[in-house]
Amino acid sequence: MPPALEELHDLDDVERAAAAVLPRDVWDFVAGGAGREATLAANRAAFDRVFVTPRVLRDVSGCATDTTLLGRPARMPLAVAPVAYHRLAHPEGESATGRAAREAGVPFTVATLSSVPVEEVAAAGGRVWFQLYWLRECGRSADLARRAEDAGCEALVLTVDVPWMGRRLRDVRNGFALPGQVRAAHLGSGARSAAHRSQAAGSALAAHTAEAFSPALTWSCVEEVRSATRLPIVLKGILAPEDAVRAAGLGVSAVVVSNHGGRQLDGALPAVEALPAVAEAVGESCEVLMDGGVRSGTDILKALALGASAVLVGRPPVWGLAAGGQAGVRRVLDLLAEEFRDALGLAGCASAAGARELRTARLP
Amino acid sequence: MPPALEELHDLDDVERAAAAVLPRDVWDFVAGGAGREATLAANRAAFDRVFVTPRVLRDVSGCATDTTLLGRPARMPLAVAPVAYHRLAHPEGESATGRAAREAGVPFTVATLSSVPVEEVAAAGGRVWFQLYWLRECGRSADLARRAEDAGCEALVLTVDVPWMGRRLRDVRNGFALPGQVRAAHLGSGARSAAHRSQAAGSALAAHTAEAFSPALTWSCVEEVRSATRLPIVLKGILAPEDAVRAAGLGVSAVVVSNHGGRQLDGALPAVEALPAVAEAVGESCEVLMDGGVRSGTDILKALALGASAVLVGRPPVWGLAAGGQAGVRRVLDLLAEEFRDALGLAGCASAAGARELRTARLP
Amino acid sequence: MPPALEELHDLDDVERAAAAVLPRDVWDFVAGGAGREATLAANRAAFDRVFVTPRVLRDVSGCATDTTLLGRPARMPLAVAPVAYHRLAHPEGESATGRAAREAGVPFTVATLSSVPVEEVAAAGGRVWFQLYWLRECGRSADLARRAEDAGCEALVLTVDVPWMGRRLRDVRNGFALPGQVRAAHLGSGARSAAHRSQAAGSALAAHTAEAFSPALTWSCVEEVRSATRLPIVLKGILAPEDAVRAAGLGVSAVVVSNHGGRQLDGALPAVEALPAVAEAVGESCEVLMDGGVRSGTDILKALALGASAVLVGRPPVWGLAAGGQAGVRRVLDLLAEEFRDALGLAGCASAAGARELRTARLP
Amino acid sequence: MPPALEELHDLDDVERAAAAVLPRDVWDFVAGGAGREATLAANRAAFDRVFVTPRVLRDVSGCATDTTLLGRPARMPLAVAPVAYHRLAHPEGESATGRAAREAGVPFTVATLSSVPVEEVAAAGGRVWFQLYWLRECGRSADLARRAEDAGCEALVLTVDVPWMGRRLRDVRNGFALPGQVRAAHLGSGARSAAHRSQAAGSALAAHTAEAFSPALTWSCVEEVRSATRLPIVLKGILAPEDAVRAAGLGVSAVVVSNHGGRQLDGALPAVEALPAVAEAVGESCEVLMDGGVRSGTDILKALALGASAVLVGRPPVWGLAAGGQAGVRRVLDLLAEEFRDALGLAGCASAAGARELRTARLP
Repeated sequence: MPPALEELHDLDDVERAAAAVLPRDVWDFVAGGAGREATLAANRAAFDRVFVTPRVLRDVSGCATDTTLLGRPARMPLAVAPVAYHRLAHPEGESATGRAAREAGVPFTVATLSSVPVEEVAAAGGRVWFQLYWLRECGRSADLARRAEDAGCEALVLTVDVPWMGRRLRDVRNGFALPGQVRAAHLGSGARSAAHRSQAAGSALAAHTAEAFSPALTWSCVEEVRSATRLPIVLKGILAPEDAVRAAGLGVSAVVVSNHGGRQLDGALPAVEALPAVAEAVGESCEVLMDGGVRSGTDILKALALGASAVLVGRPPVWGLAAGGQAGVRRVLDLLAEEFRDALGLAGCASAAGARELRTARLP
Repeated sequence: MPPALEELHDLDDVERAAAAVLPRDVWDFVAGGAGREATLAANRAAFDRVFVTPRVLRDVSGCATDTTLLGRPARMPLAVAPVAYHRLAHPEGESATGRAAREAGVPFTVATLSSVPVEEVAAAGGRVWFQLYWLRECGRSADLARRAEDAGCEALVLTVDVPWMGRRLRDVRNGFALPGQVRAAHLGSGARSAAHRSQAAGSALAAHTAEAFSPALTWSCVEEVRSATRLPIVLKGILAPEDAVRAAGLGVSAVVVSNHGGRQLDGALPAVEALPAVAEAVGESCEVLMDGGVRSGTDILKALALGASAVLVGRPPVWGLAAGGQAGVRRVLDLLAEEFRDALGLAGCASAAGARELRTARLP
Repeated sequence: MPPALEELHDLDDVERAAAAVLPRDVWDFVAGGAGREATLAANRAAFDRVFVTPRVLRDVSGCATDTTLLGRPARMPLAVAPVAYHRLAHPEGESATGRAAREAGVPFTVATLSSVPVEEVAAAGGRVWFQLYWLRECGRSADLARRAEDAGCEALVLTVDVPWMGRRLRDVRNGFALPGQVRAAHLGSGARSAAHRSQAAGSALAAHTAEAFSPALTWSCVEEVRSATRLPIVLKGILAPEDAVRAAGLGVSAVVVSNHGGRQLDGALPAVEALPAVAEAVGESCEVLMDGGVRSGTDILKALALGASAVLVGRPPVWGLAAGGQAGVRRVLDLLAEEFRDALGLAGCASAAGARELRTARLP
Repeated sequence: MPPALEELHDLDDVERAAAAVLPRDVWDFVAGGAGREATLAANRAAFDRVFVTPRVLRDVSGCATDTTLLGRPARMPLAVAPVAYHRLAHPEGESATGRAAREAGVPFTVATLSSVPVEEVAAAGGRVWFQLYWLRECGRSADLARRAEDAGCEALVLTVDVPWMGRRLRDVRNGFALPGQVRAAHLGSGARSAAHRSQAAGSALAAHTAEAFSPALTWSCVEEVRSATRLPIVLKGILAPEDAVRAAGLGVSAVVVSNHGGRQLDGALPAVEALPAVAEAVGESCEVLMDGGVRSGTDILKALALGASAVLVGRPPVWGLAAGGQAGVRRVLDLLAEEFRDALGLAGCASAAGARELRTARLP
């Protein structure tokens, strides 16, 4: 019998619980990275090398994690990152995740590859962001952007690091394909697609995205999205300071320092390592989010101390979803909130903003 | 049968002996750290990275470990750190530890959460310090300070890194609570408290301290303690040079560079790494003690070479207490004294003061 | 039954397949390095420490791996390195490897110690380079150079790091000797040589090369080769920038930054570590190739970002040859080409030349 | 059956062979270090982090390892370090080791704690050095110095890092004592000493040296030795550049950068790490030898590239002695000579002196 949610005391516990209930190929799809998974491992190792110098004798009795994200309040500096096909983890899929995020007071990002339509997720309320891939079909991405806006989404997260899907060898070796009941709700007519066609040695998802996504994504697409919608735009998947500065110059509201959780270029710089230079380069010209390896409230504290305004978490909510549906996602977000408040207070910060002033050191 | 004390040849031996006799949840309470125990491990790793350049051809025939601590003589630059509830390890609890420290010629710090009243410990003589937590109940900490002074304590060690107890997951998973016969001698009427109420998934000790301790501890509390007593004041739990300088400016006698043995903010800088900058910043304006990972006389030598005037040891005396009561604590302190004298002489220093001049290097 | 070639999804898979089919002593001959194999391991570890900062929002729809090598087109910035005695791995030996390289559009380097004559390999077409050892017998190397030129080879790769064979202890322990049917096609009359005489404790190959190779190889030999042929000359086995600059000054077309795959001086600097200083020192005065540890397309990307114009791969084609003859070599080269194209595009580079502009970082 | 000597292909092989034949407590006495053996391990790790940049295209056909040591020729830049009680490893003890060193053309250092009198060893010829401990008994060390000179020794090696024996816990745990037939030939009347009195928990050797050695060893003792003999003086056990400079100023012929093989101060800087600063500080004012972790010819090359003029090896000859008596020691020295010649040539150096010019790098 799987452990009760209240027996999951950190995200490692939730990860183990998810690994125990998910079919192996789904687990691999969620957990895996590209190539030899060097960047996947480096994302975590980079966090583990960072240490923080706490301050003392400051009143933290009112310590609170509240902040703003894209100018609007959030209960902590965190949003749920876009992850494809939540229904792989639980029948209620993105609907459950969205409800849990709303309860936890943080934005939830519905993916282009969501298995539940954005309208259904957004109808439940809460802050919903929509993640956009650049699709081959002309005008299709702009259509999706408008559809998200109409559904009540608050922001568009344009993913810029997927001209095509990275070589995720776990999926290739598993011949991974979507089960029939899980579909890309925003693409095609809802019918079976290339993502459902199992191959002896290959990833059906990679084949599907190769068909659907455009490798010709450029800076002009950012302008195109901007003219299609009034929503604030977030560019996700930036590691080079030059690219971040250019994005800010185009008026995006935020960049997400990210290597796509180690799922695109294996050998890409860990997000934690890229973060300080990006944060310094953009200054106050846009918000700097980050993802890749955030697994505890201490990691959030470290990210803020390194210059982020907030973090995204991708895999952990999916672990929660697998382990306990909406309540499982809620457990993940509650643990992160409790841990982050604990870390803030123990570091002598009465608020999330205070974390930005902490000094960090990298140890070997 | 557990090994005889004379078969314990270093502190690792004592640790193993304690692990063999203590109930698992008590062992975990003593051994554990916060969160993923990254800082707990880093405290040790940081010591292991430090290497010392010994000097030669100096007469060390009279090599002695004597020094002064807070201006008064001690047989070596070491004090026993405050640790809660020694009676968890041995029925004689803090009384035994105190007698052993007296025999060894070093100060013993009685904790606010002592399981034996400070008067009882102090009555046995020796140098006794009293550790103070800032309690929610108004004036209570000042009362404790005066009580300690009346009992004959020599110094007050105000712990500044515990607005609340860190997330010690071992205790949470064990549902750890105090057994009935072990009580917080200085809190309440000696009756059972929240610390005794076992929860399915939670630390009763964390619940108890949340009830009792104030998260509103600030610099003004330091002034309040100072005006309540004539005893020298030590601030324990400082890692930032700015905080140390401010403490010295307030007239404290010493700061303890410490992350609470990895039990508060997981991800906090190892004490060894924080030490040199703190020592340089305060200069001669107050004494600089340190704790966190001291497990041998060589570690004491390294701490001194890095700028400390002395170290505190917390877990090792408790291991000794578990392994052999008063004699076990004595064994721990004797091993440290012998090892430190050995290290001093082999480094070419005829006295503890000489260790301050040694050059250190950090290797990968 | 060995896995089908299409089930080999990266070079690690091919390596395992080769290890499963090759006799142990042949495997050791291919896999082993000199001494404690510290440099062998460091070649890989050095690649693993390098991380790349990808760029985004550049059109990579036309991303192609094509480049030039020694001024002539190649399908990717890679050549097959010289490796002795391919017939140890497969009866068709260098003929199969050469055909696969031709299909893949990359140069193949026939070794002085080839088990198939260069004429036979070159007759199959494609770009063939010839690797030259400096032989004791006067004029013999120049003769070989002319013979290679006559056979249609495009370049001469003079190996400069083998005054004698390094201490390859696996071969020594195995008493490794060539089986009768495998012979050094360019040395002697094709008869059995010292390389076939097994010793109880010693490498017959080392004995053979000690007999045949000259330890008096100097810069004047480079001039001698140059005057014997009109072919472009590549010096392979350079790690010191001074040596690279001197080579360029002599008019060589390229240097190969290499420690001979960890098979010569154990303790020699990893090629990846030596590369940047060599590339900077020679500037545009000659091409800078490298080898040692290239095991994926990401490694090629890293090498280019560190200053190489192309890489050589030695062991992987031999693994492919063992696992599947010509088709196995092809599989290796196709995997590298696919992986490199993938890495290029995901790093935001539309061409191999773009990789030279990427920023790299070294992590612990 | 133990392997034949010709099947031992590197020093690791010899070490294993010795471990297989020696009684466990003798093995521990030879292999062990002080404390947690951190410095013992760091000595090796420091060598492993060093990499060398070889040079190419230099004629190494005449590559030779010859050099001078203390101004007189030696077949390679290496001497056998003083190690106590060779008869623990083999009945012929230091006599066998000395004969092997003579055959190999390198100096052998007879220890104060030799189990064979220096006269007996020196009678066999070869270059013999004598190692001197500073003894409590007044004038005794000077007497030993004269005795060594009379016996024909070439140099006096005054060990300066042993005011007393370090805490070698293996010996303590083993209650290690000398077997009756092994005696300190130069101390006492050859009768049984404290070194033979086994204790339940303690090292009889440490007790013996505490009785015999003086912790009051100072710079004036160096002068005293100098005035007692005309032999060149070597100070062994220096890590601080200041101490090396002072030694050179007193006219010693050489210093040995050494932490006594990790057997004295645990936590002392690895010799490899201390070497460059010492070499730079003394310049040409005296020779700089080093020991601690030399296990191959490549290590000798690295030590020279880091500034040493030669190395000492202590444990490896004892391994050889255990594995095969005089022939075993010879095997060790021959392996080192062959490996060093190989390393020299592959690094492009025609002589030991050339190794001093090689560039080194430290990798993580």
